[in-house]
Amino acid sequence: MSSNDLVLSVDAMGGDNAPGIVLEGLLTFVRAHPNARALVHGDASKLSSFIDQHAELKAACEIRHTDKAVAMDAKPSQALKGRKDTSMCNMLESVKTGEASVAVSAGNTGALMAMSTFVLKRMPGVHRPALTALWPTVRGSSVVLDVGANVEVDAEQLVEFAIMGSAYARAINGLERPTIGLLNIGSEEMKGIETVKGAAELLRNLDIGLNYKGFVEGNDISLGTTDVVVTDGYTGNIALKTAEGTAKFIGGLMRDALKSSPVSMAGGLLARSSLSKLKDRIDPNKINGGVLLGVNGIVLKSHGGATAEGFATALRIAYSVGNSTFIRDVEESLTLFKASQTDTRETIVS
Amino acid sequence: MSSNDLVLSVDAMGGDNAPGIVLEGLLTFVRAHPNARALVHGDASKLSSFIDQHAELKAACEIRHTDKAVAMDAKPSQALKGRKDTSMCNMLESVKTGEASVAVSAGNTGALMAMSTFVLKRMPGVHRPALTALWPTVRGSSVVLDVGANVEVDAEQLVEFAIMGSAYARAINGLERPTIGLLNIGSEEMKGIETVKGAAELLRNLDIGLNYKGFVEGNDISLGTTDVVVTDGYTGNIALKTAEGTAKFIGGLMRDALKSSPVSMAGGLLARSSLSKLKDRIDPNKINGGVLLGVNGIVLKSHGGATAEGFATALRIAYSVGNSTFIRDVEESLTLFKASQTDTRETIVS
Repeated sequence: MSSNDLVLSVDAMGGDNAPGIVLEGLLTFVRAHPNARALVHGDASKLSSFIDQHAELKAACEIRHTDKAVAMDAKPSQALKGRKDTSMCNMLESVKTGEASVAVSAGNTGALMAMSTFVLKRMPGVHRPALTALWPTVRGSSVVLDVGANVEVDAEQLVEFAIMGSAYARAINGLERPTIGLLNIGSEEMKGIETVKGAAELLRNLDIGLNYKGFVEGNDISLGTTDVVVTDGYTGNIALKTAEGTAKFIGGLMRDALKSSPVSMAGGLLARSSLSKLKDRIDPNKINGGVLLGVNGIVLKSHGGATAEGFATALRIAYSVGNSTFIRDVEESLTLFKASQTDTRETIVS
Repeated sequence: MSSNDLVLSVDAMGGDNAPGIVLEGLLTFVRAHPNARALVHGDASKLSSFIDQHAELKAACEIRHTDKAVAMDAKPSQALKGRKDTSMCNMLESVKTGEASVAVSAGNTGALMAMSTFVLKRMPGVHRPALTALWPTVRGSSVVLDVGANVEVDAEQLVEFAIMGSAYARAINGLERPTIGLLNIGSEEMKGIETVKGAAELLRNLDIGLNYKGFVEGNDISLGTTDVVVTDGYTGNIALKTAEGTAKFIGGLMRDALKSSPVSMAGGLLARSSLSKLKDRIDPNKINGGVLLGVNGIVLKSHGGATAEGFATALRIAYSVGNSTFIRDVEESLTLFKASQTDTRETIVS
């Protein structure tokens, strides 16, 4: 394996259909990015025959053997305790040592969050990393965080999320100054919970180049009103799963509707290709880039049940974030933010 | 107006298209429920000609004139201050005096919540009333509360919501022992915020006939996993609006898809009647019964932009709740709950 391009570190044993879909996804990815390199962590006996069969994979990949893997249903604390030599832990270690720039896993989400934070450590100035989703919208996709890592946060943490989400939107959606919204409720008078109000106050007064637009409501997420939507992990997780449930419900109704009579069925057949494009727009495999922001390194989380195509999408996102100035952007903004906070405190004290 | 059946108190001046849709909705409603009676609060000069033209309405309705109305964009505090003689306030006063059993308004939500609580007062044992939605699901509809009245709650309030939501599901969906879920996030280890964990503890140990099933996640709402979903008003409002935004987004994609080519368009036309049935299932006008639970009386909130059909739905729901044992059910359960709490405290103290 030469290393004239970005090196990805891949957990080949994570996910419901590992290592099959991981390897197929890798193949799709390296065909599109022939200069990329990958360290593939997992059971060599299960990986080598497929890799050996495909010259592109063989050229791009280096197997790092281990027969230990984190179970999909392991509790984060168990996984952390038994992490040694698991494919997930080795994947992260490769990023820590600098051998690779980004890590990609379709494994156990809780375990990946806990282990990433433990192995890679938090970036300076970040209280807690945030799980970040790409959310399909009318305008394309928005970055939503936190969607599950932190159930309770304070105002300063929400500002950290805004900084990280903004840098991420810049890295993957190519936006110069992504707009940022704070998720809140509609009532004019009370305008949400204290932490959200506190974060709004901080963001309004912060002069570090963030493009803060104000409060957004639940329906604004799918509208794409802002490029970044900031919230706590409890609310964000519930919003994300509510949207998934709603999409599934409507999809089911649509399928039933198109089967309800021979005439409807004929209509459904005629409209099939258009409706399948619709499905693509909301298919999690097409927008498959959960990412843990705020650790020293870039850790992409693919859906556990992703298809090979979905895993390839996660690899593509990892590749583009890895080639961006994301880490430097976040570090700079965090430094400015923390300095501004110190200034404020000193002003108050003096 | 005779009063041999339930009397509804209606705010004829509330809503984006008042009083037109209110009167048309009333007409639809009284045709189906010829024994029901209604006090119609609003500007007689705008109401009487329509009512006089329809014998059914004339027989069922009594106009209570006022030319004052609450503006749709008024802040709750403003509306409360200037409430005197508004159609909304008079509507509530009719319930307070016992002239009518239920109030129905399509007016300003924040104003209606504030004024209902002020005029009707909280039920004994209720800390704060909760705004409650009927949520379309795979299984029909579920009761979700709070969807916006209380941004921050404690564990005991969540139990009060469970009690009220359960009685409401019994009243409108005819369920004997509605199942109850607490909205939470998926992570096994941390299982959500402290208040939710506290409420779960209370509900598990409470022996007052509630059918508590445990935690549910965002996607469970549309699945209809439980008949009642309990959450705080901040999370509930965001979940509701996120679902609305998602449904709108997918609906827009579907329309675009069916217009994208002549063949798809033909397919869409063939499937039209089935797809319109689909739309009915998620049309807010077909499930239009926001209700403020926890005040002394029943206050139905129709969507501000509801059609006449939507307003008629709200009237039908009001009618069936008014004819149910809802208030008594809630009072009994709350008394039992509060007594059990006292017992617990005494046990701890002794």
